[in-house]
Amino acid sequence: MIIVMERNATKDDIQKVVQLLKEHDFKVLEHTGEIYTVINALGDKTALSAERVGSLAGVKEVKTIREPFRLASRDRKNEDTVVSFNNGVKIGGDNKPVFMVGPCSVDENFDGLLEVAYAAKDAGCEFLRGGAFKPRTSPYDFQGLEEDALKMMAKAREKTGLLLVTEVMDAQDLPMISDYVDLVQIGARNMQNFKLLKAIGKSNKPVLLKRGPSATIKEFLLAAEHILYNGNENVILCERGIRTFDDSYTRNTLDLSAIPIIKKLSHLPIIVDPSHATGQRYLIEPMSKAALISGANGLMIEVHYNPEIALSDGKQSLSTAMFKDMISRLMKLRNLIKYDNNTLSTDVE
Amino acid sequence: MIIVMERNATKDDIQKVVQLLKEHDFKVLEHTGEIYTVINALGDKTALSAERVGSLAGVKEVKTIREPFRLASRDRKNEDTVVSFNNGVKIGGDNKPVFMVGPCSVDENFDGLLEVAYAAKDAGCEFLRGGAFKPRTSPYDFQGLEEDALKMMAKAREKTGLLLVTEVMDAQDLPMISDYVDLVQIGARNMQNFKLLKAIGKSNKPVLLKRGPSATIKEFLLAAEHILYNGNENVILCERGIRTFDDSYTRNTLDLSAIPIIKKLSHLPIIVDPSHATGQRYLIEPMSKAALISGANGLMIEVHYNPEIALSDGKQSLSTAMFKDMISRLMKLRNLIKYDNNTLSTDVE
Amino acid sequence: MIIVMERNATKDDIQKVVQLLKEHDFKVLEHTGEIYTVINALGDKTALSAERVGSLAGVKEVKTIREPFRLASRDRKNEDTVVSFNNGVKIGGDNKPVFMVGPCSVDENFDGLLEVAYAAKDAGCEFLRGGAFKPRTSPYDFQGLEEDALKMMAKAREKTGLLLVTEVMDAQDLPMISDYVDLVQIGARNMQNFKLLKAIGKSNKPVLLKRGPSATIKEFLLAAEHILYNGNENVILCERGIRTFDDSYTRNTLDLSAIPIIKKLSHLPIIVDPSHATGQRYLIEPMSKAALISGANGLMIEVHYNPEIALSDGKQSLSTAMFKDMISRLMKLRNLIKYDNNTLSTDVE
Amino acid sequence: MIIVMERNATKDDIQKVVQLLKEHDFKVLEHTGEIYTVINALGDKTALSAERVGSLAGVKEVKTIREPFRLASRDRKNEDTVVSFNNGVKIGGDNKPVFMVGPCSVDENFDGLLEVAYAAKDAGCEFLRGGAFKPRTSPYDFQGLEEDALKMMAKAREKTGLLLVTEVMDAQDLPMISDYVDLVQIGARNMQNFKLLKAIGKSNKPVLLKRGPSATIKEFLLAAEHILYNGNENVILCERGIRTFDDSYTRNTLDLSAIPIIKKLSHLPIIVDPSHATGQRYLIEPMSKAALISGANGLMIEVHYNPEIALSDGKQSLSTAMFKDMISRLMKLRNLIKYDNNTLSTDVE
Repeated sequence: MIIVMERNATKDDIQKVVQLLKEHDFKVLEHTGEIYTVINALGDKTALSAERVGSLAGVKEVKTIREPFRLASRDRKNEDTVVSFNNGVKIGGDNKPVFMVGPCSVDENFDGLLEVAYAAKDAGCEFLRGGAFKPRTSPYDFQGLEEDALKMMAKAREKTGLLLVTEVMDAQDLPMISDYVDLVQIGARNMQNFKLLKAIGKSNKPVLLKRGPSATIKEFLLAAEHILYNGNENVILCERGIRTFDDSYTRNTLDLSAIPIIKKLSHLPIIVDPSHATGQRYLIEPMSKAALISGANGLMIEVHYNPEIALSDGKQSLSTAMFKDMISRLMKLRNLIKYDNNTLSTDVE
Repeated sequence: MIIVMERNATKDDIQKVVQLLKEHDFKVLEHTGEIYTVINALGDKTALSAERVGSLAGVKEVKTIREPFRLASRDRKNEDTVVSFNNGVKIGGDNKPVFMVGPCSVDENFDGLLEVAYAAKDAGCEFLRGGAFKPRTSPYDFQGLEEDALKMMAKAREKTGLLLVTEVMDAQDLPMISDYVDLVQIGARNMQNFKLLKAIGKSNKPVLLKRGPSATIKEFLLAAEHILYNGNENVILCERGIRTFDDSYTRNTLDLSAIPIIKKLSHLPIIVDPSHATGQRYLIEPMSKAALISGANGLMIEVHYNPEIALSDGKQSLSTAMFKDMISRLMKLRNLIKYDNNTLSTDVE
Repeated sequence: MIIVMERNATKDDIQKVVQLLKEHDFKVLEHTGEIYTVINALGDKTALSAERVGSLAGVKEVKTIREPFRLASRDRKNEDTVVSFNNGVKIGGDNKPVFMVGPCSVDENFDGLLEVAYAAKDAGCEFLRGGAFKPRTSPYDFQGLEEDALKMMAKAREKTGLLLVTEVMDAQDLPMISDYVDLVQIGARNMQNFKLLKAIGKSNKPVLLKRGPSATIKEFLLAAEHILYNGNENVILCERGIRTFDDSYTRNTLDLSAIPIIKKLSHLPIIVDPSHATGQRYLIEPMSKAALISGANGLMIEVHYNPEIALSDGKQSLSTAMFKDMISRLMKLRNLIKYDNNTLSTDVE
Repeated sequence: MIIVMERNATKDDIQKVVQLLKEHDFKVLEHTGEIYTVINALGDKTALSAERVGSLAGVKEVKTIREPFRLASRDRKNEDTVVSFNNGVKIGGDNKPVFMVGPCSVDENFDGLLEVAYAAKDAGCEFLRGGAFKPRTSPYDFQGLEEDALKMMAKAREKTGLLLVTEVMDAQDLPMISDYVDLVQIGARNMQNFKLLKAIGKSNKPVLLKRGPSATIKEFLLAAEHILYNGNENVILCERGIRTFDDSYTRNTLDLSAIPIIKKLSHLPIIVDPSHATGQRYLIEPMSKAALISGANGLMIEVHYNPEIALSDGKQSLSTAMFKDMISRLMKLRNLIKYDNNTLSTDVE
């Protein structure tokens, strides 16, 4: 921890800071420059928070040296985390990127869901995604079929062998949802729902944690830290676009540099959701390719048997036909690339 | 609803849009310009969402005319909502702005809490605020004393007669918390926790809804709409700073123009939290004054008996002594101002 | 300067950093923690830039302690800068806030300009503002009457005694514009036009420097530093709204906390432009009042004799009648307030 | 143009809007809904600006249908613009992406510059980039060697045959700089320096226009429109990262979806600058690959013979050795990809 004192801090102010640090077993070194006094404190930040030090009189700024996420950091664990599923699919590390495909919301047409699931399976995808509980900005919008949707998804899994992923919105629903699906998703709006993070942390269920639209990378990894801290190591991250000043042509701005940054900072796998990031059908293919080449461990793509009647996010959903056309090109790319940890990037063979 | 078709939309695309609109009883008018076709649709948006129309092939953009928040809008109810408490305190409309004062987190020192409560009471403030359940970015930070904190707050109310406000983080805790406090707060990170909004909407408890740090004014009012839609009309809004590109000197950027904007759009009362907005002690007084003059219906200010040992947000908490010094000036201003609905601003008498 | 080395920095990397610092007469102190090595360097940053140090191999981060703006900082000069005009008007320090009033663009109707000027003069305002050279986002919009506009403004000054302020867009135009007006404005888009800053810095003309819509406070003060560094001390700052994620109801987000922040960091005066900040007529009065109470040294307000035919920014311009109505309330407030340097805020007497 | 009137707009207000539109030869259609009146106006926006209409009393909002950039839009010209250089290099359309490589600032070591130039040439790159006039946030930083730098670059061109690109900061310097280099760059901070855009527009010099760090895509294309409008069609765009709320690990956030968006909206070529976008050496390779796969027409990469003594941006500059290592992989990718206009994306062969 490095503490910069205010220009007009008194000797007494400085003394109090030093004392507090020493009480918490920090090794303290004080340097007085022309205008500012700087205090270096070596020790364990978890014993004394930067916030507490920052509240002392005369403290201008406290800078911590180590990243605040400990368990998520490569400082603690250098080898890549790989999340394994019971059919042998693996996410993370050297494993090839996975594809998660399906409708934003599951609606009552089971045949439609199955059509998408078979298209995904036939193309070589690994997961069927589908919304059962939907967080909606407006109370007038469709809120999801809840458990009925999960039942349909489970039937689709039976027929296709695809793994299932769906969003959980509340800690209370977690046990029920976990029974149905293979991977539980925490949506962007719930990235800092700490009750939910804690509940999932206490289970052992693989979890897909989406980045909040205005979460910094640090906050994103701290949200993952809440899960890891409670004991669950099966965490997969998902970049899905951030909120910026420009939303004329897209819903969000896809932050692809987050992938190599997170690969450098953390051992956790990270996938990309180009559908929510852009909100535009025509951008899904170019951004999927860019995500794969950036080193993403997977993609999550919205596909609906008939986007024009989809109960949510139709604008950004591909139809089954569009999907079949696109996926062949994405699979070709997936087969050609190989991730290189040294360059934090993907090479075409 | 106004629908702009893509440059290359086919006649068939246009026909499909028109048909869908007509099926939902919209009156449809079609205009073909040099390059684009525009379709005007008059009717009730709740019958057919803009999103659904937007997902049709060939649709470039859908623009809705009415604000998506209906119950929160002055279009529906023009007179100001006033939230009343059983000791006669009222928030909203012509009532003078209220003050909510207290520590970010309640800690184990009851005398300290009482010291702050008496200082607030003596100065003429109406509410004691205090955190019992704390949402924390890092799992290593203090998470709150939970029910023990509420018990201490209840005792402080007994002694001082102040009303109580605290944050609820999860729908499950709502009944218990509602028993203790007069006003239940939904924190900024939970502004779009729809399960929680629904649960509070189904109660009749007065609720203080904080704006998410990256929520637009539209999303903020739509979050209030979730509560109103479920039947609870006792909604008070709170502006507490938004996330922008500049956080060198403040935690967030206080958006004071949101006050007159929301007063124009909505009948709901709105207060301001300058402590969280700025994160800096020295900015609380100037921004409190600016909020009062901007027409805020109240202020929420962090005060701790000893900010240097506060378990959260010490940096932005005033000590009891600093608070006593400042509050005299704020009360003087409160006594001089009078809100004028015509100019959406406050006059000094 | 504090240098944090990468986790995997070699001894040789560290040695090179230390050597470079010593070569530039820094006093160097090295601390090795469990994971990271931190180097404290005491000395004059102008001798060796943080950027240069940051480019060395193995350096994770370089943190500077002193603010990078030197001449603009209270570290260098504590007393408030006051800019004086030849008719005795003064901006900054304890002087009462000034009002700058007039049309966004000057058009060909001289009587219209005069109508506004007289309304301003009669109400007790100090400056007539008017655009002669207009920076326009689109090439299809009106670009200004250039010198003809300045001639009209000069005539209006003759008749009313108001001081004049107008924008300069290019260093080449500076001498000509300086001949006509009392205060030269650098627009938000030109805040980092360094050629222009340098040119104005080499003159002695009072200059009004507007904050760029996405400039941090640090960058804003560094832009002022360019002017001060070249010798011109007559710098007045202007907050005019920043670009954020929410532009549904306003053009920009007015950042009022920037006023007390800048008053704490710098000795330069700062005014507020609520017209450009909000882009909405109805927000000008509430935000003007909030700016005055926040300690602004003045206001710049758009007024046009007929906003419905204004050649730019009509939407945010007040008509003469609206202005006359509003200004009486603003003047009443101006007469009641007094700025207090200790609380960085304004008291109502 | 679509005009939405305020809820409380009078018949007279509506009449005035209709009249103004008719005076400018718009075809007008008026629709009165339950709450709002909407006016459709078909005609040429350049005859009457949306801004002017928006300033009329009672107007809530004006929505334009066509993009405000006309000449830059595919509405006007559908085939891709290709900018050609006298040695046969072409940028845009089906041509393979080009590489622009070199130091942020040219310093006094000509041999160093030559080292970089030869490395670029040998790898198959097309351009040598180098800064002669440097816009610097702080006046204490190096401002460039000006014409001396251009002379060195010209010598390097003589020896290597590489084309030259450098930044121009002021209209006055344009003729001199144009004499030296093949491609003139307008920097991000000058994207809305309209005097400079106009000056370059009046020449025929190929120009590389960088996106401002907080410019929307619309503003970016409108800046290009200023150049096109003045007659110069040789415009190449450059995405170089935008300013967002998260700058902990990067200088800016690279907005790669801007590439397919701009390819859809406009016929102009667009390249990417991963060095300025990220500000981090280790992110240049992954983001270069992602840019190539996203369909960029080229890359601009900072390389310095010794980044540790670079006079600017050393942190983000690659050394010659790092560059040689990376470029082989980028060239391999360049040879494998082919852009497909239908999918707005790049296929690996």
